[in-house]
Amino acid sequence: MTKIGIFGGGQLAKMTAQAASVLNIETLIFANEANEPALKVTPHHLIGAWDDEDLLKQFAESVDVVTLESEFVPVDILQKVESYGTPVYASSETVEQVRDKLVQKRRMQQAGIDGPRFKKVMVGSDVLEASTEFGFPLMMKTRTLGYDGYGNQLIRRAHDIEPALQKFEGRELMVEEMVNFVRELAVIVARSADGSVRAYPVVETIQKNNVCHIVRCPAAIEEDVARLANDMAIQAVEAIDGVGVFGVEMFEVADGQVLFNEIAPRPHNSGHYTIEGTITSQFENHVRAILGLPLGDVAQIAPATAMINILGEREGEPNPDALNDVLRVGGTHVHLYGKDQVRPGRKMGHITVLGYNTDGAEKVARLALSKLNL
Amino acid sequence: MTKIGIFGGGQLAKMTAQAASVLNIETLIFANEANEPALKVTPHHLIGAWDDEDLLKQFAESVDVVTLESEFVPVDILQKVESYGTPVYASSETVEQVRDKLVQKRRMQQAGIDGPRFKKVMVGSDVLEASTEFGFPLMMKTRTLGYDGYGNQLIRRAHDIEPALQKFEGRELMVEEMVNFVRELAVIVARSADGSVRAYPVVETIQKNNVCHIVRCPAAIEEDVARLANDMAIQAVEAIDGVGVFGVEMFEVADGQVLFNEIAPRPHNSGHYTIEGTITSQFENHVRAILGLPLGDVAQIAPATAMINILGEREGEPNPDALNDVLRVGGTHVHLYGKDQVRPGRKMGHITVLGYNTDGAEKVARLALSKLNL
Repeated sequence: MTKIGIFGGGQLAKMTAQAASVLNIETLIFANEANEPALKVTPHHLIGAWDDEDLLKQFAESVDVVTLESEFVPVDILQKVESYGTPVYASSETVEQVRDKLVQKRRMQQAGIDGPRFKKVMVGSDVLEASTEFGFPLMMKTRTLGYDGYGNQLIRRAHDIEPALQKFEGRELMVEEMVNFVRELAVIVARSADGSVRAYPVVETIQKNNVCHIVRCPAAIEEDVARLANDMAIQAVEAIDGVGVFGVEMFEVADGQVLFNEIAPRPHNSGHYTIEGTITSQFENHVRAILGLPLGDVAQIAPATAMINILGEREGEPNPDALNDVLRVGGTHVHLYGKDQVRPGRKMGHITVLGYNTDGAEKVARLALSKLNL
Repeated sequence: MTKIGIFGGGQLAKMTAQAASVLNIETLIFANEANEPALKVTPHHLIGAWDDEDLLKQFAESVDVVTLESEFVPVDILQKVESYGTPVYASSETVEQVRDKLVQKRRMQQAGIDGPRFKKVMVGSDVLEASTEFGFPLMMKTRTLGYDGYGNQLIRRAHDIEPALQKFEGRELMVEEMVNFVRELAVIVARSADGSVRAYPVVETIQKNNVCHIVRCPAAIEEDVARLANDMAIQAVEAIDGVGVFGVEMFEVADGQVLFNEIAPRPHNSGHYTIEGTITSQFENHVRAILGLPLGDVAQIAPATAMINILGEREGEPNPDALNDVLRVGGTHVHLYGKDQVRPGRKMGHITVLGYNTDGAEKVARLALSKLNL
């Protein structure tokens, strides 16, 4: 019996465990808290701190391979698992190249992958210098632990620099040129240790308050733009010798150019549509990739798929009757992650709709979301 | 948090639990043995005998509703759960009307649903009498606990009667006229307590040694035959006031007539194709129906779907590398149930393929099965 260990018990771990169980592959969830969503879909778990050496050793020795649902697992912990003889995918080396955004962007630059210009900054004069090079506005980012817009601060003018530096005091920082994008694009890439690779269709992602809100598959882009995005995504995963599934976010800018934005070394929100929208979901392909099994077909099932995130809008417990109305909307696939507290902006679930065109699918998804009484 | 209790821990319970977890509905599995497949997809279980009163009470009181993956759960046990105030779907009354095949067929006859002629038999002269009415061959069946051909015995001539009676000594029996069917058909029906009902597409089922082997969706039948089968399936579920998902098996005979064969008060093998082949799977609709949630869309995703069962061909442990080759076959959805012993004819999993036509989909499914090294 094959068993996968997963650092983290959130929705990505849950959906990975669900995909694994269809193939009769077991999962052991290493969660920090007893109420995390993934603990509901497998009987095997460890609850505690990842840096608890006894727990960590037990975790590593109980499974065939370890994976992670967040790039925030400290690299030295991943290395420790590897030192126990259990492979980790994404590997500690891969994660080391992406967890620090400055390191990540330098790595991609080295690999010939174009992105917005960026600069390491430490003091105000560094930022000013960047502004003379790139112009205002600039995006200031903490180099590590940023997600869903946390750790980002827009710098519109010189005046904004000091408050931003104060806000992020003690953190390592970088600034990035703001690009005028036409669309944000994303591609999920699955890659195995033997180098075989599959890229899912290029999707358009629409953010709301810096959180992924809607994914439209396929993106309404020219074929050559899709080709560029597809190739860049694969190149980015190869640049960090990634094994498993990766989410690559890009910008489509004027003239059909594509710029690299960010890579996540794990299944990605922009790929949730693949559960129903493609033959093999990103979660199943993640399982396959990290176990050295053949990668599955990434073709779309229907001409178009739309996914909308269910984001919390208040503080409190979820409504137990949340589903009563939304399930009346035909053609929808509702996913509730099982988080026991709603918080504004928190990802509580998602809704996927297949259709003949993305506009139609998105319309149904929005309608469904409006009927959910979370 | 809603919780469903399931009698039984086999593949039907497993797939029901998986569907429930997507909607953040928990499941409590009441299994007889600790190694049953469904125990791998939920942390909540009871292991023991269903007639253990303490366990049964604990089971009933821990959940909002109880369901079953097999009609072999004794009716008095279902009644006991109901007496504790926990609804059971299919209800004890519904199950009582189907668990005994003679009672079931009489009920359907009463409801105006046509089927092959049948007769209760106790001694040889009863069978002889039936043969003069229906002609040879006849099918002798144990009235209860028969499945996958166990409990059936073909009677080709008078000579076969005594050995058959001896084989089934002590069992209650019936005989049935053998019909010359063109095809075996099946329809999955989901029905709620408020009477709302949805019937899935009519499929063709192909048996191998009395076990479901292949399901083709849609069945290659005339529209009026499909209409007859659809209506009969719904009528059959209504006749027993069924709540939940039901599998209704029928025969298509000459001249486009449809005859009732059997009804199962639970998700059914002929509906496994719905996991990927229709918008809402039979398992999700079962969950919705028994919780009083709106029923989901039963439309097909692709023009055609084929499902092939993975049946054991030997005695022993499953091969841990079973998946290495089959996953190379594009476009397939492989399900392994996680039974820890292979036995000849045992249902170990299934493979589903979506396509443009059923022949093509079936071809790919057969190819995939041939590559599985179970």
